[in-house]
Amino acid sequence: MWRCAGGVMETPLNCAEEQQLPPPLPDSWSTVTPQEPTTDRKDKGNAVGFVLVHAGAGYHSESKAKEYKHVCKRACQRAVDRLKAGALAVDAVTAALVELEDSPFTNAGMGSNLNLSGEIECDASIMDGKSLHYGAVGAVSGINNPVLVANRLLSEAQKGKLSAGRIPPCFLVGRGAHDWAVSHGIPPCPSEKMATKFSLSAYKRNKHKMELAEKVETGFNHHSKKRRQASETENGSGLLDTVGAIVVDREGNVAAAVSSGGLAMKHPGRVGQAAHHGCGCWAENTSTLNPYSTAVSTSGCGEHLIRTMLARECSSAMQCEDAHQALLEAMQNKFISSPFLASEDCVLGGVIVLRCCRYSDAQPSADIQAILVEFLWSHTTESMCVGYMSAQDGKAKTHISRLPPGAVAGQSLAIEGGVCRLTEGLNKAVSDALHLVDQPAGHV
Amino acid sequence: MWRCAGGVMETPLNCAEEQQLPPPLPDSWSTVTPQEPTTDRKDKGNAVGFVLVHAGAGYHSESKAKEYKHVCKRACQRAVDRLKAGALAVDAVTAALVELEDSPFTNAGMGSNLNLSGEIECDASIMDGKSLHYGAVGAVSGINNPVLVANRLLSEAQKGKLSAGRIPPCFLVGRGAHDWAVSHGIPPCPSEKMATKFSLSAYKRNKHKMELAEKVETGFNHHSKKRRQASETENGSGLLDTVGAIVVDREGNVAAAVSSGGLAMKHPGRVGQAAHHGCGCWAENTSTLNPYSTAVSTSGCGEHLIRTMLARECSSAMQCEDAHQALLEAMQNKFISSPFLASEDCVLGGVIVLRCCRYSDAQPSADIQAILVEFLWSHTTESMCVGYMSAQDGKAKTHISRLPPGAVAGQSLAIEGGVCRLTEGLNKAVSDALHLVDQPAGHV
Repeated sequence: MWRCAGGVMETPLNCAEEQQLPPPLPDSWSTVTPQEPTTDRKDKGNAVGFVLVHAGAGYHSESKAKEYKHVCKRACQRAVDRLKAGALAVDAVTAALVELEDSPFTNAGMGSNLNLSGEIECDASIMDGKSLHYGAVGAVSGINNPVLVANRLLSEAQKGKLSAGRIPPCFLVGRGAHDWAVSHGIPPCPSEKMATKFSLSAYKRNKHKMELAEKVETGFNHHSKKRRQASETENGSGLLDTVGAIVVDREGNVAAAVSSGGLAMKHPGRVGQAAHHGCGCWAENTSTLNPYSTAVSTSGCGEHLIRTMLARECSSAMQCEDAHQALLEAMQNKFISSPFLASEDCVLGGVIVLRCCRYSDAQPSADIQAILVEFLWSHTTESMCVGYMSAQDGKAKTHISRLPPGAVAGQSLAIEGGVCRLTEGLNKAVSDALHLVDQPAGHV
Repeated sequence: MWRCAGGVMETPLNCAEEQQLPPPLPDSWSTVTPQEPTTDRKDKGNAVGFVLVHAGAGYHSESKAKEYKHVCKRACQRAVDRLKAGALAVDAVTAALVELEDSPFTNAGMGSNLNLSGEIECDASIMDGKSLHYGAVGAVSGINNPVLVANRLLSEAQKGKLSAGRIPPCFLVGRGAHDWAVSHGIPPCPSEKMATKFSLSAYKRNKHKMELAEKVETGFNHHSKKRRQASETENGSGLLDTVGAIVVDREGNVAAAVSSGGLAMKHPGRVGQAAHHGCGCWAENTSTLNPYSTAVSTSGCGEHLIRTMLARECSSAMQCEDAHQALLEAMQNKFISSPFLASEDCVLGGVIVLRCCRYSDAQPSADIQAILVEFLWSHTTESMCVGYMSAQDGKAKTHISRLPPGAVAGQSLAIEGGVCRLTEGLNKAVSDALHLVDQPAGHV
């Protein structure tokens, strides 16, 4: 049994050493003001694990901030409910995603962006850090929880071969994905029910804007290069609010998932990073080669995230000593300045990452083992909405991270994060600490 | 202008040092018997570059060996024709793929495996080592040269943004991919014309086998676990003969491509490694970080190749000093013994790889620069059919590599390769050498 009060600031982080809490925390974590302790701790004896979710890297208006935060809060709660019921990381991360997909405010499942033909086609994927299995769906219509299909592909693949020795698929797209899902008990949803008032009006607006842009371009010049250059500054409308989550469970297993309706006005059949192995999410338990278990979920411009394989890159980077510095360097060198995006003047994306390892408590009750979870988010977009919660918390914390004033979206980045100790045994808690760097520390 | 007689053995490899040919070749390259010099060298003054193709890792029967070799030969010739016409690597690799797809004997384009519903759905992708751009199509029907769509996606993406600032797609699937292709001038092909007598009879045979297996399994036991175990030994029918090619052009640019009809009796909508970034092919020109330009194309069980991201792993490995040893270790550690495939008892795949770097000739005419190309193939399947040719050669060499007697497919590997010097200037040729390790050197 693991006990955690990750969302509850009992001790400021800079007091950790005085309390003899190993291991020492990285220098880059700022000191924070102690927060209010949670009063509601009833029935949390079995509560174990931690979840971090995102409602996309893009632009989150102040007017809708409340809704974005609210859905992140509910998603965290759903994951924690599953963890409390004894579920492992994969199940908990799926539960969080279902909640995020069900919100009409996110670009995933219900309320997804419409494509060029006015249809909804979704991408989703999930990875289990324990088995290292992976499941994904791309450009699937008529399924309001694509993550359930990804999850089912993953679990079916783990059962071994199909009849006549056929290898089960890990990635299905389009109509085939839809039919597979329905034949595996996942209910279809009429596409018209997945569109919302908001997504339909955004579609009309975008279509009008596109037609206008094409008229203007045609009027100016028939030469395709000039046409394209002329329109490069006009990409202000797309909310890149893919959703995702990462989880650590009581056994220290990690899992990651991501789901997206894709770019607004995308070509039918376009698949983004959310369905792409190594690009949308990554989860890898600790092994002889890797001292840390790591989990990552991304958001942003799918093409940029595919070409840089950002989820896997960030996961690898998190094996370095200083998590904060490692993510900062990964976002800078493997994304903003990536040779794979050399021709792009504006590189849009965001990630949530966590890493964890077991450590032994140095206090007299030396048999106590705990899990140290370091978690971060970073984005080059205007903003990114995140939520996080440990299974010991009464409620999730949510936050809309924004680039600092003057920073240029697509060229600068913000990075923030915290630390949470998951300590075994309700009555043997050593200390729990969580902090949030309120100011972007890594603006480059 | 580069001159090359890669396929022509003028000098055995072990004589290289006597002739003061830098750089020294790796110890792992075996000495070979000198081969016949080519007599036909007319009109080859402008011939530059090198191509290596594969017609899949799987099982190539002796009875069809001639056809497999023949299509590899023609594919090499097509690439070389383009190189001679001044084309760069991306165009040449596409030309090779078109030839491989057009053959009814390969599982790509025409004659592809049929899926569970008796339809053909193809995957293909291409990567340009110079721009690092990538294009891919998945589960596309009614297009007999899927590589042309991948190539076009790549070239369209390089033109920059679409109207209203939309980001062009790099990966399209299903109906959307088909429609995009047709709207970009790629001719559709009725699906019934893409099936061959051979693919249709294989479908009927497989369907019958599957029905039998399911009856037997149902008769034995209703428990799914036992059902699946019972059928694990029955996967003998699938020819995993995806096709691919890798090219170096006169400027030293590399490109890679791959195309596949996927596993026989796959679920509709299933996408394999051939459409998956980092899994089906990889090409990366030399940079400040990478001393070598590298190109890779894979074949085999798509799910295994996706989960291990084998193309990118092999590309990274090729930056090590000894190419042969690096590939051997990559195939062993990142594929056969990969933690991502820990649950698999049989790991099926193959790769063709090349790496190249410029070097200066140590002879008096010291201004001569040349490109040293090291190329290899390795597979865990029963066999792999390859062909290779330099632009100076009269014709391609082809080879069906087989596991040595006693080796177990899916658990052992074969590795072979050669070296080719592309030397600038027809009349300034220093020496050209190419060798083939006739016996699998890396059987583990």
